[in-house]
Amino acid sequence: MPIRIAVDAMGGDYAPLEIVKGAVQAAREYNIAIQLVGDEVQIKNELAKYDTAGLDIGITHTDEVIEMGESPAKALRAKKNASIVLTVASVAKGESDGLVAAGSTGAAMAASLFGLGRLPGIKRPVICCTMPTTKQPIALLDGGANSDCEPEMLLEFAIMGRIFAQLILGYENPKVGLMNIGEEEGKGNEFTKATFNVLNAKKEIINFIGNVEGRDTFTGDVQVVVCDGFVGNVILKTAEGALKMVTKLIKQEFMSSPLNMLIGLISKSVFSGIKKKIDYEKIGGALLLGVKGVSVISHGSSNAYAIKNAIRVAKEAVEKNVNEKIVEMYNESMKEVN
Amino acid sequence: MPIRIAVDAMGGDYAPLEIVKGAVQAAREYNIAIQLVGDEVQIKNELAKYDTAGLDIGITHTDEVIEMGESPAKALRAKKNASIVLTVASVAKGESDGLVAAGSTGAAMAASLFGLGRLPGIKRPVICCTMPTTKQPIALLDGGANSDCEPEMLLEFAIMGRIFAQLILGYENPKVGLMNIGEEEGKGNEFTKATFNVLNAKKEIINFIGNVEGRDTFTGDVQVVVCDGFVGNVILKTAEGALKMVTKLIKQEFMSSPLNMLIGLISKSVFSGIKKKIDYEKIGGALLLGVKGVSVISHGSSNAYAIKNAIRVAKEAVEKNVNEKIVEMYNESMKEVN
Repeated sequence: MPIRIAVDAMGGDYAPLEIVKGAVQAAREYNIAIQLVGDEVQIKNELAKYDTAGLDIGITHTDEVIEMGESPAKALRAKKNASIVLTVASVAKGESDGLVAAGSTGAAMAASLFGLGRLPGIKRPVICCTMPTTKQPIALLDGGANSDCEPEMLLEFAIMGRIFAQLILGYENPKVGLMNIGEEEGKGNEFTKATFNVLNAKKEIINFIGNVEGRDTFTGDVQVVVCDGFVGNVILKTAEGALKMVTKLIKQEFMSSPLNMLIGLISKSVFSGIKKKIDYEKIGGALLLGVKGVSVISHGSSNAYAIKNAIRVAKEAVEKNVNEKIVEMYNESMKEVN
Repeated sequence: MPIRIAVDAMGGDYAPLEIVKGAVQAAREYNIAIQLVGDEVQIKNELAKYDTAGLDIGITHTDEVIEMGESPAKALRAKKNASIVLTVASVAKGESDGLVAAGSTGAAMAASLFGLGRLPGIKRPVICCTMPTTKQPIALLDGGANSDCEPEMLLEFAIMGRIFAQLILGYENPKVGLMNIGEEEGKGNEFTKATFNVLNAKKEIINFIGNVEGRDTFTGDVQVVVCDGFVGNVILKTAEGALKMVTKLIKQEFMSSPLNMLIGLISKSVFSGIKKKIDYEKIGGALLLGVKGVSVISHGSSNAYAIKNAIRVAKEAVEKNVNEKIVEMYNESMKEVN
């Protein structure tokens, strides 16, 4: 049986068009089965645009959708058959091996948590993001699941991030750093000072190297960066904003004179090389770690390429038993305490 | 009498060489007097390298220096004649109108706070940073003075940031946004939810437009972004890191083949145009707002150009009576309460 990934076909700014397109591409490229969840008529209309011969693409029909602006908790209570709920249910019932959702992050998180439950030992699921660096990509967590954290939660994040960095990013012994505003021990706010001590007590198990700063997120020298979900989300959006600013300034500059426009044409290939290296769409989506199942949450503005890559991430997480490994490592780290 | 700026000649990675060089340039370019504080022999050696004819450059000798690694509090107690202490004292005694320091940020902050005292009404001084955007620069505060904040402190930051954005950045009625992880009211962690209410209660006085996100720091659409010093510092260093990553990737790509190297040569002028727009050195330094005096804190790695610009910022803050205006606006905002 090939791996089957359930995809919320109705979630995201470009749903169902780009979602279905990305799903078809993934089915063909990765040789996997896809379960599209959403309005059957709309999905079939989209599917009809592509050659799906020989592909295993199922449809679970529903006409309920949770919109981006809705309160996740309320919406989940009111819409028992929302596409995200049925997408998660497909995994919970064992009909699919993992899921991808590009709609409301809050709804996808809540639906995954309620529908799948937590991994044994894990108190708080976490959004594990992949960040581009000048070397290889690294993991940043929490990307925004828990905006207020207790120090102990960051130990769980470190454990989950290490497994992700090993199995999905391919690091043998990834280093874990605590996001802070100074490298020396004793730096930071009350929260990071307390968290430092919690992580430092498990130094050997999690390969904790100490505090890191905002700029260290992009060097590749630390492979797992942990922080609370507020700070993590600010980092993600700040990085996104800074990169967009540069892109815009480069474009502006290349448009500022006929000579610059010519230079722009000449150097186009160079920029597409750079773009590939910091391509958030290639990253596809963030894994919600700590739930009993593979759940990949994509950016609301995901296009087909991003969805295809999100499905790849889900497939890899299933193949590599990320969740089992997290439980194993968690138990190991707890053993050391007693 | 021309404006006189006291400069800690011994602070920063390239002190006293780059500090003295930048100070001489500023003295000539802005027609101001400079008081260099530090080792007289070293300073004179540096001064001898330049044409200082007609410039008013004084020296206050001291051989004590607070190093980057030292605990600011301890060092300030132990080194009563440290260059940063005497630099601040020059302003406190009225011998200079403002100061610039590029050494330990913690020491410069603490020395300024102890030596100058707080402005009436202001509880916590704040580091007010200038951030490049795709349009004009904006203000971000707190850049790192207060790593743990109470919601009420951010109202002070907003007041001080508004004055800075009006007088130094030149905005008529700058918009104030609260750094958060979602735009809608009710988003965020406990701290930002509480802070939202505090700022919203003074909405009209501070021109509060609500929550903003990491990416909004770079669009120029909001001109004053407030957050606690931990988050602010993370944003600054994340932006710095992301921009450095792009620069490095661009360089790598241009070096990757002879053709790309040629394209790199051709497009060099375009990049220097962009570099100018996001030039942190041109910004010079951050104002420590809320103390009774003008105190500009520069990056530890400041070169002469950055120091010259930091001195320009100090000069402008003196000329435009930033501190008096802060007190006026603070009193006004308090009046509205009663």
